Amino acid sequence: MKSYRIALIPGDGIGRDMTAAAWSVLQNAAKAHGFVFEATEFPWSCAFYRETGTMMPADGIETLRSFDAILLGAVGWPAQVPDAVSLHGLLLPIRKSFVQYANIRPHRLLAGVEGPLKATAFDILCIRENTEGEYSGAGGRIHQGTADEVAVETSIFTRKGVERILRFAFEQARSRRGKLASVTKSNAQKYSMVFWDDVTRQLSAEYPDVEVTSYHIDAMAARMVMAPETLDVVVASNLFGDILTDLGAAIQGGLGFAASANINPERNAPSMFEPVHGSAPDIAHLGIANPIATVWSGAMMLDHLGEKDAANAVMTAIEAVTKSGIGTVPGRDRTDTITAALLAAL
Amino acid sequence: MKSYRIALIPGDGIGRDMTAAAWSVLQNAAKAHGFVFEATEFPWSCAFYRETGTMMPADGIETLRSFDAILLGAVGWPAQVPDAVSLHGLLLPIRKSFVQYANIRPHRLLAGVEGPLKATAFDILCIRENTEGEYSGAGGRIHQGTADEVAVETSIFTRKGVERILRFAFEQARSRRGKLASVTKSNAQKYSMVFWDDVTRQLSAEYPDVEVTSYHIDAMAARMVMAPETLDVVVASNLFGDILTDLGAAIQGGLGFAASANINPERNAPSMFEPVHGSAPDIAHLGIANPIATVWSGAMMLDHLGEKDAANAVMTAIEAVTKSGIGTVPGRDRTDTITAALLAAL
Ligand SMILES: CC(C)[C@H](C(=O)O)[C@@H](O)C(=O)O
Ligand SMILES: CC(C)[C@H](C(=O)O)[C@@H](O)C(=O)O
Repeated sequence: MKSYRIALIPGDGIGRDMTAAAWSVLQNAAKAHGFVFEATEFPWSCAFYRETGTMMPADGIETLRSFDAILLGAVGWPAQVPDAVSLHGLLLPIRKSFVQYANIRPHRLLAGVEGPLKATAFDILCIRENTEGEYSGAGGRIHQGTADEVAVETSIFTRKGVERILRFAFEQARSRRGKLASVTKSNAQKYSMVFWDDVTRQLSAEYPDVEVTSYHIDAMAARMVMAPETLDVVVASNLFGDILTDLGAAIQGGLGFAASANINPERNAPSMFEPVHGSAPDIAHLGIANPIATVWSGAMMLDHLGEKDAANAVMTAIEAVTKSGIGTVPGRDRTDTITAALLAAL
Repeated sequence: MKSYRIALIPGDGIGRDMTAAAWSVLQNAAKAHGFVFEATEFPWSCAFYRETGTMMPADGIETLRSFDAILLGAVGWPAQVPDAVSLHGLLLPIRKSFVQYANIRPHRLLAGVEGPLKATAFDILCIRENTEGEYSGAGGRIHQGTADEVAVETSIFTRKGVERILRFAFEQARSRRGKLASVTKSNAQKYSMVFWDDVTRQLSAEYPDVEVTSYHIDAMAARMVMAPETLDVVVASNLFGDILTDLGAAIQGGLGFAASANINPERNAPSMFEPVHGSAPDIAHLGIANPIATVWSGAMMLDHLGEKDAANAVMTAIEAVTKSGIGTVPGRDRTDTITAALLAAL
């Protein structure tokens, strides 16, 4: 029987509750579709940091490398460990070390979910560059704490980095409705963003079947709210993708429904699947968080592993549950109730 | 009789139509409130560039310096002049030379206007840093056009620049509902944004009456859509403010309603008032653009000049007109119709 080795990193706060819930659903899907999921759980988290002084062991990345995929809950507990430490000690190193350069986030309304917009008919796939750009971590501060202080932060974009994410996005657009929106701010950032626009223009010649349009980030943010139905695939830099995907989560009804995949398209290292939401310390372990974003992320994992039928079965179960009204109103249904409904629907 | 000297820069595209419409309304308000508006019109624009090779004469900034205020329509005609040239040749030099460091943009639904959100009760004042940060224009590209190309873009934040915009925002919050949201991305940009958070924390001690909360830009973008009624004053960097104010324009029904003021709070140089929308070449001179954003910007100019009664009269006229349904549906009513209604309502 086919078997997959999954690294489970529940992380902090509701991340622990969500991975537990999602894992039971995924195990069931595996059983029903004739393959085996073998999980190894890693306790790496802010609690781990407080015990050991690091977010993960020195060989953490090497340990993860042999797995088929990683399912992550959420990282961060700012009251105990600064985000700069926790995120840069666990989440971001995984994305970068395994060259998970494509962060994919689908934005559409699940059946039965009420969003904040009057518009309901949209189906957007955001693709965020995940390894460089505005989150390169390059910069510094001088004259710190004085009236003369200056802080700089440098975005670094490479041809290789920009080209590979754009190619990935062109391919996705080709497999969907053939429309690609490339998002920059080239009228105000004349080096990095003009470069991105140049590469977009060059690649577009190779994809004559894809209709590509360049937007400024400000105009795109407005468009996602005013006319989301006009969008298909949206590709953006690390920062712009970060912003647009939270906005995407908002228009799809909230972070409780926002799934994501950090993909290494070359498949020479594991990809990672995680909900867009964070660890939500205020509601951790109260049993009221919504596991749907993590389960949906799990469906994206199944799809990536090639288990399309199981992936479809999980998505069908999610929509059957939300259509029945369960899990559609933030904070109303308990984690257990939603999980049981998902298991029943499978 | 009190008299103000206004520099009128209609600029490009619908900017020309909008300033003409707004100017007739403002002239009427001046007459009704016992002061004189003396306009000097400057033809600086992309058309001017094609004739002369520059967006404005070499002494343009010095010419503008003696005016009491500047009313600008829109700059840009990308098909003829690259944005990098037109914006960096006219709009941005004015903002920077006159140290108009506070870009103020109000976001609320005018009476009778239908926005894209189900939520209707919000009243947000966005304050965008306007002179430094991500739009410093520092950076470069190496190995251009080759596979090894690298582009960098450096954000530069100074203590003086960050402190003055935050102070301005704290003062605005104090004069409104006492709530300030400061927007960064300090979990991923650890120099510039951690610096901004540090300065926010330091200043908050001086404003114990203002409740200040720090948000990440991604969470704020989501909040403006999910819970805009929870926000009062929002302060952000040049780029983040740029994005949030287009989002603000979207939730208030579109760019046709989004006004802005580029303020020099020290009043040692003129401030500039302009709609958030651009020159919209596709609908230029068709007589169908909505002048309300420019008229509202004019009301902000009146307020800045100390003519509060006239400013209130213009705002009351705007809301009377939109309440009657005129000018509320994009593209339906002609510029002339809306302008005539505003004049009648004054
Ligand atoms: C927590 C943070 C560093 C992270 C990011 O910006 O990548 C998060 O916002 C996300 O969107 O996954
Ligand atoms: C045209 C562009 C440079 C400008 C900006 O980003 O400042 C515009 O988007 C705005 O918001 O005023």
